[in-house]
Amino acid sequence: MRIAFLGLGRMGEPMARRLLEAGFELAVYNRTPERAAGLHAAGARLAASPAEAVRGAELAMTMLADDAAVEQVVWGESGLLPALSRGALHLSHSTISLALARRLAAAHAAAGHGFVSAPVFGRPDAIAAGQLWVLAAGAAPLLDRARPALAALGQEVLVVGEQPAMANAVKIAGNFTLAAMLEALGEAQALAAAAGIAPARLMDVLNKLYQSPVYRNYGAIVAQRRFEPAGFSLRLGLKDASLATAAAAELQLPMPLADLIQTQIQAALARGWGERDWSAFAQLAASPKS
Amino acid sequence: MRIAFLGLGRMGEPMARRLLEAGFELAVYNRTPERAAGLHAAGARLAASPAEAVRGAELAMTMLADDAAVEQVVWGESGLLPALSRGALHLSHSTISLALARRLAAAHAAAGHGFVSAPVFGRPDAIAAGQLWVLAAGAAPLLDRARPALAALGQEVLVVGEQPAMANAVKIAGNFTLAAMLEALGEAQALAAAAGIAPARLMDVLNKLYQSPVYRNYGAIVAQRRFEPAGFSLRLGLKDASLATAAAAELQLPMPLADLIQTQIQAALARGWGERDWSAFAQLAASPKS
Amino acid sequence: MRIAFLGLGRMGEPMARRLLEAGFELAVYNRTPERAAGLHAAGARLAASPAEAVRGAELAMTMLADDAAVEQVVWGESGLLPALSRGALHLSHSTISLALARRLAAAHAAAGHGFVSAPVFGRPDAIAAGQLWVLAAGAAPLLDRARPALAALGQEVLVVGEQPAMANAVKIAGNFTLAAMLEALGEAQALAAAAGIAPARLMDVLNKLYQSPVYRNYGAIVAQRRFEPAGFSLRLGLKDASLATAAAAELQLPMPLADLIQTQIQAALARGWGERDWSAFAQLAASPKS
Amino acid sequence: MRIAFLGLGRMGEPMARRLLEAGFELAVYNRTPERAAGLHAAGARLAASPAEAVRGAELAMTMLADDAAVEQVVWGESGLLPALSRGALHLSHSTISLALARRLAAAHAAAGHGFVSAPVFGRPDAIAAGQLWVLAAGAAPLLDRARPALAALGQEVLVVGEQPAMANAVKIAGNFTLAAMLEALGEAQALAAAAGIAPARLMDVLNKLYQSPVYRNYGAIVAQRRFEPAGFSLRLGLKDASLATAAAAELQLPMPLADLIQTQIQAALARGWGERDWSAFAQLAASPKS
Repeated sequence: MRIAFLGLGRMGEPMARRLLEAGFELAVYNRTPERAAGLHAAGARLAASPAEAVRGAELAMTMLADDAAVEQVVWGESGLLPALSRGALHLSHSTISLALARRLAAAHAAAGHGFVSAPVFGRPDAIAAGQLWVLAAGAAPLLDRARPALAALGQEVLVVGEQPAMANAVKIAGNFTLAAMLEALGEAQALAAAAGIAPARLMDVLNKLYQSPVYRNYGAIVAQRRFEPAGFSLRLGLKDASLATAAAAELQLPMPLADLIQTQIQAALARGWGERDWSAFAQLAASPKS
Repeated sequence: MRIAFLGLGRMGEPMARRLLEAGFELAVYNRTPERAAGLHAAGARLAASPAEAVRGAELAMTMLADDAAVEQVVWGESGLLPALSRGALHLSHSTISLALARRLAAAHAAAGHGFVSAPVFGRPDAIAAGQLWVLAAGAAPLLDRARPALAALGQEVLVVGEQPAMANAVKIAGNFTLAAMLEALGEAQALAAAAGIAPARLMDVLNKLYQSPVYRNYGAIVAQRRFEPAGFSLRLGLKDASLATAAAAELQLPMPLADLIQTQIQAALARGWGERDWSAFAQLAASPKS
Repeated sequence: MRIAFLGLGRMGEPMARRLLEAGFELAVYNRTPERAAGLHAAGARLAASPAEAVRGAELAMTMLADDAAVEQVVWGESGLLPALSRGALHLSHSTISLALARRLAAAHAAAGHGFVSAPVFGRPDAIAAGQLWVLAAGAAPLLDRARPALAALGQEVLVVGEQPAMANAVKIAGNFTLAAMLEALGEAQALAAAAGIAPARLMDVLNKLYQSPVYRNYGAIVAQRRFEPAGFSLRLGLKDASLATAAAAELQLPMPLADLIQTQIQAALARGWGERDWSAFAQLAASPKS
Repeated sequence: MRIAFLGLGRMGEPMARRLLEAGFELAVYNRTPERAAGLHAAGARLAASPAEAVRGAELAMTMLADDAAVEQVVWGESGLLPALSRGALHLSHSTISLALARRLAAAHAAAGHGFVSAPVFGRPDAIAAGQLWVLAAGAAPLLDRARPALAALGQEVLVVGEQPAMANAVKIAGNFTLAAMLEALGEAQALAAAAGIAPARLMDVLNKLYQSPVYRNYGAIVAQRRFEPAGFSLRLGLKDASLATAAAAELQLPMPLADLIQTQIQAALARGWGERDWSAFAQLAASPKS
């Protein structure tokens, strides 16, 4: 199966590498082509534009930073939409808005393409280890066609529904629960510290309670303030927080905790923490502020 | 070791029963004596007042609803403070304020008693199964004396520091993280539902991510809206939320998420949900409101 | 001076009427042309498209519902941008985002047009009485050319800066303070009512304190729950709240109160209050909720 | 009429002075007696304890910092309660909790005293100018007896109900609206500043809109950051914020904005701003934070 992979950032590059290693024939595209050198050395064909990458491909996979980047690659100059063959399938892994997922589904349907949304959970260093969780939503026959490539990406494919935007909703909701956990751990550790208890000691107790690797990992990051280097930067984290509040606004749903998280991330950015790991906003409660 | 156990509510009664079953000699007291009948039948001596219960005891254990109930049992009419023998030890399991924990420590020290704070994590039905987590803070020799009784209560004793109030801080912080998780799950499920995804399907995904029994149990309760009968009522839940915000105020610490949770619980009470399980406030985001 | 006025909604129609009454020669356009009948009877020329309206005009004034409506009228089919004469001036009265105000300024500059942002404060019934407050931002010579038309709209023109988006920032900030006042009055009245004090009695006291017609008017609306008919609907109010939070996100500025207001408006919409006056969200605190 | 005045802080001292100037015979008490020197020179009798101050008085007026200070003066050593003559009247001006106002009313009734709650609005420098607003709640005949003294304190006596705690509820609600205004002005000015608009320019516009001396005064304080010297310190401001959230908790009323204000004040205290004017928390939004 000939695959085009577009977007070779901190997540996209190791995802594409897994596909190569699984034996897929790959054309790759990145806005800044230097990021593609390693994959080229490993056998991928380099493309100079989205259009060139997807020409002749059965599957176009995109992993891009945000709505604007996806719009550019799909509808922009030398974009993939007019170049993709009728009958081909676009797998979108980017964390994007519900609104854009719906627009993509409609545009691809109109062009005779399939479209599946397949955002992922996991940090860059989890990808090589095969620990990515892959969500997927789309029409059942399209999911069947996508499955071999999706399966190569991570440890399990979790189908959430027939409409592509549903996978984006689950991704947004899941990220939101992670951010809520970070804020909670930040405040709890600050309270404990002010009462004389080392954050790591508090985490020992909470880890007994939760027994969750997610609490264990992020709890230690917050307790030790290991925010650099960033796995995923706070500057990008604002986008994820905004996706949750935008979804709430669109669905006319009160989500006060989602709003609180956006506020906290903005407060952390106002302190100049944009290049730290996105979990750094959890330090706001504890940070000496004077 | 002769033990007095005071407070036989939904948590206290099964805790006292475990002590009996472990072979301790028990005197019990409850404001409404009917609650003591089962323990009496099982061999406990009934006392008509806190003072009568603790007379001659080496260990007084209290499990009461809130600060006011503890103040009444300790300093009120026929209270335990003047009746407890010099050299005896008071083990306080109640979820109370940092300020009261400090006052208790000082008053017992002045009276020649030992004092250990030992709040617990777990719901009533977990006690009989031996699944309670027991926190403990106090001077090391006192902890040694308390250990046999504490060990009989649950699965593990987690020592958090030398000052009794530190155990209360950990309990308050831990409860706060649970409430934060509930609010997050409530909003996430509401978002998913509005996007067409069944809350249980969202939880399937989140459970892959978190791998935590706490998320699994509470996530299912919220998804299925199993809020009755209450394990622990929302009316009492307000107290726990207030302990976190009071601690934040005392320590001059911003805890915006703790405030949000108190607001949500008050909103749920304003809807008349006081006798539902405390997790019911997580339904606010999802509830049809017109 | 020949003027084109586009957008004849609840605000635009009476604004256009004031211009007619002040003697300006007017071409008018509205997406649903029925709204233009009264102005036509009063002497305005009807145009079938934005382009037709602005052809030959020295001044194009727009008063539209939101960013999308402005984008449609400016860049859409038969839009005003290519049809407006070189040297003509676009006066934008709509409450829009900072980002769109900047895009409009740039696009008009590129086309050889002037551009001034001039959002207004006031409810529809205040317009006929000449009580509108008109903000204005733009290059000084353009403001001079706009002044006669602006002066005809209301009681005073308040110049806030040389860059058009500055007027939008002031409008967004001002609306935000009004919403904050509504939330505060709603919660304060709920507290008073729960303590046995009639909301109107509380307002008597607060009006002594604030001596502000804005508190007097909105305080009475909230106390009496006069939310229908809507001067400005809550459904549209969500847009204003979103403009504040979007500006905060763009400027990386924490605005927790702006977030709270958006949450409250979404909660009010979730109750089905979308067609009530936008101030109706102030009732949330007080409303029996069971 | 013989009056005892207890509590000679920044508010109490000038209030007592107005009574002296109005010709009342005054005994005064303050915990730190140095504060009483000026009043003594002006003709007041000094008392060494609350009991000594109120002995023989027809009217006892108290203006104290918080609940704890009132409890000490009323029920503490040499407290006023047992010393006050049967038939005498206690006028409480302190900003205290609803719960304490109710306890005071009950205790005085049991002792054969009258009790009226009469908290005030105004800053210290407004008192000498006769600009204090005086709230009052209590039984009508008691209000009649209190009126001459109340009238001497400020510009108008605003009766709010027959139960003393009602005046405290109005005071708490009123203070809350002021804090809400400060937060709103702080965020609005921060937004304006980030968009290039001087805070004073924004206030020019908002003052046109609100036409309120309260907005004018506080808006200028926030815009110019005139937080020192403090009229009323932020450290004390936390108490006022806590009274609102405590009232909300007691009345089971969701007040999210009251919670937000408490969080912000705690964040400002965490920065070491405790001795600045209480309005200083409005600077949080604007403050460079890195």
